[in-house]
Amino acid sequence: MKISVFRKEHFNAAHRLHNPAWSDEMNTNVFGKCNNPNFHGHNYNLIVKVTGEVHPETGYVMDMKVLSDIIKENVLDRFDHKNLNLDVPDFQSLNPTAENIAIVIWQILKEKLDKNLEIKVTLYETERNFVEVPA
Amino acid sequence: MKISVFRKEHFNAAHRLHNPAWSDEMNTNVFGKCNNPNFHGHNYNLIVKVTGEVHPETGYVMDMKVLSDIIKENVLDRFDHKNLNLDVPDFQSLNPTAENIAIVIWQILKEKLDKNLEIKVTLYETERNFVEVPA
Amino acid sequence: MKISVFRKEHFNAAHRLHNPAWSDEMNTNVFGKCNNPNFHGHNYNLIVKVTGEVHPETGYVMDMKVLSDIIKENVLDRFDHKNLNLDVPDFQSLNPTAENIAIVIWQILKEKLDKNLEIKVTLYETERNFVEVPA
Amino acid sequence: MKISVFRKEHFNAAHRLHNPAWSDEMNTNVFGKCNNPNFHGHNYNLIVKVTGEVHPETGYVMDMKVLSDIIKENVLDRFDHKNLNLDVPDFQSLNPTAENIAIVIWQILKEKLDKNLEIKVTLYETERNFVEVPA
Amino acid sequence: MKISVFRKEHFNAAHRLHNPAWSDEMNTNVFGKCNNPNFHGHNYNLIVKVTGEVHPETGYVMDMKVLSDIIKENVLDRFDHKNLNLDVPDFQSLNPTAENIAIVIWQILKEKLDKNLEIKVTLYETERNFVEVPA
Amino acid sequence: MKISVFRKEHFNAAHRLHNPAWSDEMNTNVFGKCNNPNFHGHNYNLIVKVTGEVHPETGYVMDMKVLSDIIKENVLDRFDHKNLNLDVPDFQSLNPTAENIAIVIWQILKEKLDKNLEIKVTLYETERNFVEVPA
Repeated sequence: MKISVFRKEHFNAAHRLHNPAWSDEMNTNVFGKCNNPNFHGHNYNLIVKVTGEVHPETGYVMDMKVLSDIIKENVLDRFDHKNLNLDVPDFQSLNPTAENIAIVIWQILKEKLDKNLEIKVTLYETERNFVEVPA
Repeated sequence: MKISVFRKEHFNAAHRLHNPAWSDEMNTNVFGKCNNPNFHGHNYNLIVKVTGEVHPETGYVMDMKVLSDIIKENVLDRFDHKNLNLDVPDFQSLNPTAENIAIVIWQILKEKLDKNLEIKVTLYETERNFVEVPA
Repeated sequence: MKISVFRKEHFNAAHRLHNPAWSDEMNTNVFGKCNNPNFHGHNYNLIVKVTGEVHPETGYVMDMKVLSDIIKENVLDRFDHKNLNLDVPDFQSLNPTAENIAIVIWQILKEKLDKNLEIKVTLYETERNFVEVPA
Repeated sequence: MKISVFRKEHFNAAHRLHNPAWSDEMNTNVFGKCNNPNFHGHNYNLIVKVTGEVHPETGYVMDMKVLSDIIKENVLDRFDHKNLNLDVPDFQSLNPTAENIAIVIWQILKEKLDKNLEIKVTLYETERNFVEVPA
Repeated sequence: MKISVFRKEHFNAAHRLHNPAWSDEMNTNVFGKCNNPNFHGHNYNLIVKVTGEVHPETGYVMDMKVLSDIIKENVLDRFDHKNLNLDVPDFQSLNPTAENIAIVIWQILKEKLDKNLEIKVTLYETERNFVEVPA
Repeated sequence: MKISVFRKEHFNAAHRLHNPAWSDEMNTNVFGKCNNPNFHGHNYNLIVKVTGEVHPETGYVMDMKVLSDIIKENVLDRFDHKNLNLDVPDFQSLNPTAENIAIVIWQILKEKLDKNLEIKVTLYETERNFVEVPA
């Protein structure tokens, strides 16, 4: 039987939603206050779900301390207290919506974790707006 | 890759659980305190999950502001600060259990959202009792 | 040194805000949606704070099980799954605002607890609206 | 259409992570602070998800009061305020990781609930570490 | 008897902690990651506490809808989705620490509310760091 | 004007409530399930409130990173993943009730922080039982 384990982490960052291919007017129409050229920011809560078999010797799917360290080194150190648009290479040409941030995190973690494990990422931009990758 | 976005909203309402085809005694036996003829009430927390592709130009599955407005106009304006049994036509002959309220909300939203999007509704009647439609 | 202990409980109830000395129009103007004649409802979260000395033999200010039982017998059994306006004598001629409900609960508990203990009541009508008695 | 209902409960317990087939050194390396021979403890939050059809006469998948009672009698009475390693037979030879505790709870509840209902168990060891059985 | 009522609101903003009278090295030493010249951001949760007498005709200390509107017009419209350092005049020469943001909010609200009411502001920068003004 | 800053931390521990001067029967009568000789445990949430003046050069009452480090070194390293009765000298002859744990933490932190700062400690034993020292 496969079971899932979850680890919750968080980071704070500034961002701006903007499509450079559009006029300023269209950016304002679509992204509203989120298009502020001086940026705004969020406390992002991140839940990483890892699905696999329970290892009979440890009783673990994987060690949550190891999972937490992998998230810290590969995601938090890269995103925490950063300006996503200016400081994080992943968003040089990708709009940092919650959807795209979660996809980037999922791609990063997929490479770092055992290929036998399935991964799902839930990212809370606020308590009322959040995303899950993949669906 | 399909991903999901979630919007959390809330409303307050009074209700009474009752099956008019049953005797008063049976209603009391089955529904207990929830059968109080003078009604009781809840703060309902509602999470709407929408699953689809990320639009490459916006980085959105759908605009959360638009989703929030659709929920407000079609669900909150209809249910908030209402007596579900007396004020809301959907429950004239349908028992307003959390299950049935969530099914009604899911049916309402399904009609209002793009047919390519899958919808799931989670409704919290209390912090400890909640339902998900569909499973 | 005096210290405080807190116990959190909850109840669900229907209510209507209404001043019978006013016209319907004035009631609607002042109380808005909360004046719905068919009632609406809430999940009320209640925190009771009790302040006193720590008893050296138990290490307790008071037994939380005893405090919980006193709240259940005197507050929850009276308010839970009730219509505050119709079912609860305290609100026959008192408007069941969060302020007044908290004052009633504070008066009830003050009589039931040791006179050497100070009591404060916090009542959450929603996650975003709450009151504290006394200030 | 199948829908799911959820009931949240909680219990407090002491435990120690330990594999008796390993040396003390290896136990410390793998389980770290969780291997403390004098035990440590947690407030476990438990969410039980039950999936089935809505019964047309009640509007319930199942009565949450009944589900709560089944969880209390079969899980909480067995685990609450206990030392999982010393007091609970299920963990005499099974390491009480969150994964294994959740599997045991799932097996217990599966036997007690109607065979037509699917069950999923989510167990929070802390706010940041939790598991889901089955995946 | 005086009692208190509370209203919870929230806003999102970018900011940078920086003292222009100091060297870059000292700014980094004191403010660490919060000194990032490209800014970072937070979801700020704000609780406004208002203390006064209950008005006998309404049962209110003050109408929470009115309080919410005053907060929206005077605080949220000024701070939400803004860069506190660049967009908000109050922080042109004042470091936007949680302490200073809360003091500014308290000063704004004090002017807008009835002089007979006492005001306290609690501001959550994260779930784990928050401030209260005045103490 | 004095203002307060708060830092939230947490630790997990096992404990047993017991008064060695009493008979087993009296211990069971008073402490109930909390008297289990094999211990039980909790996730303790700890909020430390520090009150003082805002320093004009930093905009801080005190650096939250420094406060967090002081709590970690003096409280969490001593209590986390421990058996309070067996592993922590403070409770060799003091009953580890929430009240007494909070008093010990308050005494520890008072010695480590600047004498001009007032300190208050809130300790959550569960979400529903918590204490504040001093009152």
